[in-house]
Amino acid sequence: MEGIPLKRIEKVADMAQAARRLASEGKSIGFVPTMGFLHEGHLALAAEARKENDVVIMSIFVNPAQFGPGEDFEGYPRDLERDAELAEKAGVDLLFHPSSEEMYPEDSDIRILPGRQAGVLCGASRPGHFDGVLKVLTKLFHLARPERAYFGQKDAQQLAIIETFVRDYNFPLEIRRVPTVREKDGLAKSSRNVRLTAQERRQAPSIYEALREGARVLRETGDAELALGTVGHSLGSIPGAETDYAEILEYPSLFPLSSESREAIIAAAVRFSGARLIDNILIPLKGKPGHVYQRSRRPSCPAR
Amino acid sequence: MEGIPLKRIEKVADMAQAARRLASEGKSIGFVPTMGFLHEGHLALAAEARKENDVVIMSIFVNPAQFGPGEDFEGYPRDLERDAELAEKAGVDLLFHPSSEEMYPEDSDIRILPGRQAGVLCGASRPGHFDGVLKVLTKLFHLARPERAYFGQKDAQQLAIIETFVRDYNFPLEIRRVPTVREKDGLAKSSRNVRLTAQERRQAPSIYEALREGARVLRETGDAELALGTVGHSLGSIPGAETDYAEILEYPSLFPLSSESREAIIAAAVRFSGARLIDNILIPLKGKPGHVYQRSRRPSCPAR
Repeated sequence: MEGIPLKRIEKVADMAQAARRLASEGKSIGFVPTMGFLHEGHLALAAEARKENDVVIMSIFVNPAQFGPGEDFEGYPRDLERDAELAEKAGVDLLFHPSSEEMYPEDSDIRILPGRQAGVLCGASRPGHFDGVLKVLTKLFHLARPERAYFGQKDAQQLAIIETFVRDYNFPLEIRRVPTVREKDGLAKSSRNVRLTAQERRQAPSIYEALREGARVLRETGDAELALGTVGHSLGSIPGAETDYAEILEYPSLFPLSSESREAIIAAAVRFSGARLIDNILIPLKGKPGHVYQRSRRPSCPAR
Repeated sequence: MEGIPLKRIEKVADMAQAARRLASEGKSIGFVPTMGFLHEGHLALAAEARKENDVVIMSIFVNPAQFGPGEDFEGYPRDLERDAELAEKAGVDLLFHPSSEEMYPEDSDIRILPGRQAGVLCGASRPGHFDGVLKVLTKLFHLARPERAYFGQKDAQQLAIIETFVRDYNFPLEIRRVPTVREKDGLAKSSRNVRLTAQERRQAPSIYEALREGARVLRETGDAELALGTVGHSLGSIPGAETDYAEILEYPSLFPLSSESREAIIAAAVRFSGARLIDNILIPLKGKPGHVYQRSRRPSCPAR
């Protein structure tokens, strides 16, 4: 369907009908769920979906259910017309952008509760966030009926929880991980970057540098505590930044790292005056059986 | 596919693959989830599914997740070979009968929590029961990909919760209600009836008689309290039976009845020595605007 103008759908019933028709025609659907204000990270997801599927559906929905009290739902940046242009150029066939009333016509009290995985990486500081993510994704997966859904590695905790959810609940689709897209200076692309002051924007690449330094220490020494100490020290040295968390865990289980672990994540969240930024690095560990990865010590999380 | 021998599937991966193929061929799938030990109630579901779909899939899975501690998981009656014969005669094309290990290979801690609807009708006396029902149905719906799924009206609270869940989470399928199948003397068919003593079996039809008496009072007087009192009195007079609950509510919301209600349910659970039996009657209320349906007074539920 490449080259055909982007089709826009606002109604849940129309989305369901379109996906139903495509499914009955045997078309493979690649799905890219977003909250809009697209940047190259999102477009990389769309490009992957374009390569692997007959039809690419993107959703743009700023999901109120995943914003906590005092979080930035109203202030979350939105620009639907620009997004539609970018999506069309990226090869998206169908853009689903429902209203909150369309997505949540009833005040449903049936909830999906993620387990242990939502409580690490300071998930406790955003209570209910991943409940809201699983709620909206369940609805979107049922509406768009994808064969493959595309998520960025940047939201690594979200990705880990979704992979587990899709596996445990037998969703008939495959979750595809797409590497984090970065600015030239290393800063992970994010809709929230526009909220940084000019000075904060210059400091922000230090987050990725700190993670890379930690990854180097972990690879060289196999000592997760030492690596985490390095990351914490580097993050603590960024002017105007407050470390929300820094952690080294097994991926995607998000259990503490052990000598059996095959992949590790070093993840951090850092708070500037205008935005909270997250970043992470995944590190394959297999082939290094001599290394003993110690349990990471959990740094204190600032109360919110 | 009628007349073709029943196909039996034990593996989750095989079920997913078969449904995927059928869906891509544009075949409509009717799905009948059961816990086996089939009786005419189940076969009525299969018969409805047979009428309305290209392919009929039945699952037989005694779901450990919906049995509480001290409930009868191990003792739940099972007879797979007999079930397969009955299913084939009823026009089922595909019988999915996985093991617990197939369905729950991981000890997933992601949960689906039904809300208010699970707390009425003494749902509190089976904590976690409907969590387990929603968990297994989500998995089965994803595996079997039905266009329509068939549930008996007998499990009315389960049906109400499932209808709400499917609506709120946009499952791409329709829930079809099938009326309760009864013995000639009025007793609702149930796998649990075999556990009644001969004397209890003779008393058991009084449950339905009590509900019908309550329905008559509700229709004639519009007074839910009076109707509920009638039901309670009749149930209390059954020798050897202990009333677990009796309730009149709006259906399917399971809110208290009001003058706006369009449909009511009178539901009861009664405990004999060998089995706990449930039954209910749905009563259309519209067209009787002069009636004022009062809030039902909740009878005390025996602690368990």
